[in-house]
Parts: sequence; structure tokens; C-alpha cells
Amino acid sequence: MSLQELISKIQPLDEAAMQAARARQDDLTKPRGSLGQLESLSIQIAGITGEETPTIQQKVVATMAGDHGVVAEGVSAYPSEVTPQMVLNFLYDGAAINVLAKHIGARVTVVDMGVATEMEPHPDLVNKKIALGTNNIAKGPAMTREQAIQAIEAGAEVVEAELAKGLDILATGDMGIGNTTPSAAIAAALTGRSPAEIVGRGTGVDDAGLGRKIAAVERSLEVNEPDPEDGLDILAKVGGFEIGGLTGAILAATAHRKPVVIDGFISTAAAMIAVSLAPQARDYLISAHRSQELGHQIMLEWLGLKPLLDLQMRLGEGTGAVLAMSLVEAACKILNEMATFSEAGVSDKE
Amino acid sequence: MSLQELISKIQPLDEAAMQAARARQDDLTKPRGSLGQLESLSIQIAGITGEETPTIQQKVVATMAGDHGVVAEGVSAYPSEVTPQMVLNFLYDGAAINVLAKHIGARVTVVDMGVATEMEPHPDLVNKKIALGTNNIAKGPAMTREQAIQAIEAGAEVVEAELAKGLDILATGDMGIGNTTPSAAIAAALTGRSPAEIVGRGTGVDDAGLGRKIAAVERSLEVNEPDPEDGLDILAKVGGFEIGGLTGAILAATAHRKPVVIDGFISTAAAMIAVSLAPQARDYLISAHRSQELGHQIMLEWLGLKPLLDLQMRLGEGTGAVLAMSLVEAACKILNEMATFSEAGVSDKE
Repeated sequence: MSLQELISKIQPLDEAAMQAARARQDDLTKPRGSLGQLESLSIQIAGITGEETPTIQQKVVATMAGDHGVVAEGVSAYPSEVTPQMVLNFLYDGAAINVLAKHIGARVTVVDMGVATEMEPHPDLVNKKIALGTNNIAKGPAMTREQAIQAIEAGAEVVEAELAKGLDILATGDMGIGNTTPSAAIAAALTGRSPAEIVGRGTGVDDAGLGRKIAAVERSLEVNEPDPEDGLDILAKVGGFEIGGLTGAILAATAHRKPVVIDGFISTAAAMIAVSLAPQARDYLISAHRSQELGHQIMLEWLGLKPLLDLQMRLGEGTGAVLAMSLVEAACKILNEMATFSEAGVSDKE
Repeated sequence: MSLQELISKIQPLDEAAMQAARARQDDLTKPRGSLGQLESLSIQIAGITGEETPTIQQKVVATMAGDHGVVAEGVSAYPSEVTPQMVLNFLYDGAAINVLAKHIGARVTVVDMGVATEMEPHPDLVNKKIALGTNNIAKGPAMTREQAIQAIEAGAEVVEAELAKGLDILATGDMGIGNTTPSAAIAAALTGRSPAEIVGRGTGVDDAGLGRKIAAVERSLEVNEPDPEDGLDILAKVGGFEIGGLTGAILAATAHRKPVVIDGFISTAAAMIAVSLAPQARDYLISAHRSQELGHQIMLEWLGLKPLLDLQMRLGEGTGAVLAMSLVEAACKILNEMATFSEAGVSDKE
């Protein structure tokens, strides 16, 4: 599906399904509202899917990888070679996302959106490489507008292939040395806040590195002048290939009425681009967790999302998102599997 | 085991196992510290179990039920008959705790510690009934000191029976109409804070009910004068049978070097009694979630615990604890199953 088709397919939530789910929650054997966010999540999923008692079984995390020319500015604590090394680690089940996805029963789909080296073909590696890494955003645009569209549409294709295999919920994940820098630039461009309020330490740069990172984001905005009203322009000028892929994945899941659990800083930047292109996509999003990365809260406020978890995580890969995905599944099970007051013969409130 | 034996068996955490777990966490393929509380949890479990790479497989939630004479003061939105009705709901798998325990793969052990009606025998109902509900704490002591000891030792027996079947981690849960009132009284007695700062709406009393509840807690403290230095005195005078049972369950798990995930308001009151009797038990505890009940934060501060989740839940039964138990299991899997930098051929920080 083209980007324009994706955007045009996104529908409002199903109000009737949400009302039915709310009524059922109120009839289950517990004080009304006592399960807090588990109740509201189940109602949101009813609205997203259009089903009064939605079930979540097939859970997929799409972990998309890309490299970033801006690492030349000394913005990361790790070298770019770690990106392809970690992609291999994903393929051989050694990374945190593999362990956590297995724990909650989710499939991991690993996507090369723009790793800076040619990867050996592997049956589990989805090759959607747009280019061998982006250009240095501190000196010019990350990619062309055409490549930005290509990245989004490629990310959407990944989700469409997963939908064909069976997908009830999508989680987003990322891998890319240097990618907190373009994510911060996206957040600054869309919110108008200063880079110093948004840029954090990523995988762990020292004070000098943090200073270089803030300067790189500032320069990326000065040099490129991204248009805050045009998400595609922002993605092309200061984004990244994996960020574009995640934007497309979010839009595709949303267009197919599937809930999307957004991981941390990088995934949230992709969600911001998605919502800037299709504001109605917002209602399909669930923020997994509050990242330790400095500006994440500003991004969540711009999106109007409240995170489910706050475990002081800052790894990416989709690690927060899969943990939250299990909570969404639990919320739907509550709605489906609990007895009602009348079924259980329990007296209601006096 | 007698209460004195339980207390004497509780050991400090194993520092060597914790250091080994910390070293392994730092060698796994992720930036150091980037998994936040998942890392610290895994290290705590190493210290609790004395194993460098602990595994959590057999997960048990002990949901203990009791009734409360103080409901005569009009402190609850639901009638006492709901306690036995909900016990049956647990036994027939219709309650929230059943759904969530199944979701994360935990066994539910349902215990009658002091329901105010005689329950029909059921193969899955553990009968440890001390009496048919407590006396009204607004008029005199809930129970005798002897009954308080009996309740603790009965709760410990429940866990010892589960240990014999296999238990790697315990979660606590409660059911008892009216039981936020004695829990608030326990918290007020131990922290010295005023009942008005601690008493919340429980299952949902209105403003008038809240006023009656605060007054009942105030009177319980005036009438009984519980000794803040004597946890047994507090439990006997203003506690409950299920709270005593949970205290015993916590002490037994702790004495056997098993981690204990503490649910919300009532479970946290039981944990406070346990820690007042055996301060070293504190290091074995994990706070599952921040309850919506007003004084919960004050209780957690007294215990020095930080909750894992904040999902605006206030149901009890162990519902928050089982969700958190799955996070603890995930934390141990991270420690056990992730590849190290050298195993995966990933470059470490520059």
C-alpha cells in the first residue's frame, strides 16, 4: 500500500464496541474501575479492533535496524559496527529482545532498514535496506524525501507480511548506533522545544559526548530547517531509515485496526512522525514505558500518551514494548475470561 | 515451624551471589544498566536465593480470605457475604486473580483464614480458619494474641506445603470485605501517621463511608492502644486473620530464601507486620505495584520499597502481585539467557 493509501485507510475507534466493553467491565466480579489501566486498555483494544471482547494471541515485535552518519560527530558511546553485530545477536537469539519476547510469547521480526554494512542473507532477516546508513544530519539531510517515503512503505510491507502470518498486536523496536540523536532532532522539530531539553545520554555518553550530541542536534535543525508541519520533511532531513520503517509499521498496523505498543525514545519518535502524517493513528497507540532518555516525557506529552511501565529502562530493541504487550494481552483476558456478578452469584455493591 | 523459629531462620542476602550476578549483568550484550529495574531485580533474586543465575519457574500466589467485625461500622461498599462468594469465585476460576495467574503461569492457593461463614469443603480450598471473622476493632481487639500467633503459623504452613510441591517465588493476595480498615489501622500504628492520611475508599465507599472509616480506625487505636514496638500486639488488636496468614506466608518464604512479591494495601500491611517482627525479611520483599488506596505510599516508604508497577489498580486478591511476578521471572531470564559480549562477538563500549 502506498503511504497515501495507508493514511486514508485509518479509521476512528469503534465507539459501539468500546461502550459494550465498558458495560462488560462494569459487570465483572470486581469493584468497578478497580483494575485501573487494565480496564481502560481492554476498552481501547475493543475500539481499535471493533470487537466487544477482543482476544490477543499473535504478538509480533518488529525490530528495525539502521545506521546513522551523525555518529561521525562523536554522539555515541558505541561504534557503528555494533549495529550489524547486534542484528546477528537478534538472529541468534542472544539479545534482550529475544529473551523477553520468548518470555511473553511474541515473535521477533528483525529488519535491516539501513545498516551501514552489507548483511549476509539469513532466513530470519528481512532485507528492506534503503541505503548503507543515513548521511550526517549535522551537515545536511539524512536522506531524500523519496527515500523517506520508501522507508515508510517498506516498514508497512513488513507488517503486512506479518499480518498474513497472523498478528493481533504489534510492538515496535529499534537498533541503530547513534539513533537517539535523530530521534531527539525529530522531537525538537515537532515540539519546538530546545535540543538541550530533549537530548539524553543514549547508550551512555559522558558529559563531553552529551555536549557534542546537543550541538549535533542543534546543527541538524539549523542546517536542514525541517518544516514542523511536514512529518515527511522532518523524517527525510533529520530522521533515520529504521525510524521511517517503524513509522510505516505503525501506520500499517493502524490501517488494519491492530493495536501498536510503542517502545522507548526511538520508537516514540517514529510514532510522532506517524501521528504528524495521520493524526487519527494516535488512538491506536499504547506507550509501553517511560524511557530513561531525557526528552521522552516531552515526546509522550506531545502525543498525549501515558506510559504503562516505568522500570528505568533505556535499551530499545522493543524490550519495554514486549513487556507492555503482555499487559495488554492480560487486559483483554480480564474482559473475556472473568465471571460476571450474576454468573458467579456474587452480590453487587449495596 | 513456630513463629520464633521462622524469625530465627531468616538470613541476610548472599553478597557473593549478588556480586556475581552484577558482574554477569555487566557482561551481557546491552549498555550497562540499560534494563533498569530488571537488572536490579535479578541481582536481588540472586542474593535471596544464593544462586548466581537463579531461575524462577514455579510461581504461587497465596490468596487468603477473612472477615472483619468492623464492617458493622459501615466501612465498606460491599456486604460481608461477598467474602465467601468471592472465595467460591476463586475456586471456580472466575475472578481476576484466576485470569491473571493463568496468564503468567502461576498457581493460585486459596486459603480460608477466617471467613465469617462455614465454607463447604472443596479440594482446592485450604482450610486454616482461626475463627468466624474478627471482632470489631472499633470496640476492642480483633483477636487474642494467641490467635494472632496461630494465624501467622497457619499462613507459614500454607507456604511450607507449597514449597513441598515446588515454589520459586511467592505472591501475596487477599480477600476480605472490610479489610482496608484494619490494614489502615496497622499502618497508622506502625508509622504514627494519622488515620486521615492513610484511610482510602477501599472498594469504593462514598464520602460518608470514608468519614465512618476514618472514625473507625481512630477509635480502634484509641480503644486498643496497640504497642507500635510490638507487631504481634498490633496484629492482634487491629489486624485480621488473612493479614496474619499473609504475615506468616511472607516469613515462611523468607526463611526458605524465596522472594516474595507483595500485592497492594492489605498485603503491604501484612508485610509491615512481618518486617516489624523480623526486620531482615525486608530484603526478600518486592513491592508489586502502587495501589490507588490512599495510604499505600506511606506504607511503602516505611518499608523502604519502590513498587514495580503503577497501573491505578486497587483490587487486591494478588492481582498486582502476579503481574509483577512475571517481571521478576523476566529479570531472571535476562540474567540467564542473554548472550555476553564475547559470546555474541559484539564490540563493547569504546
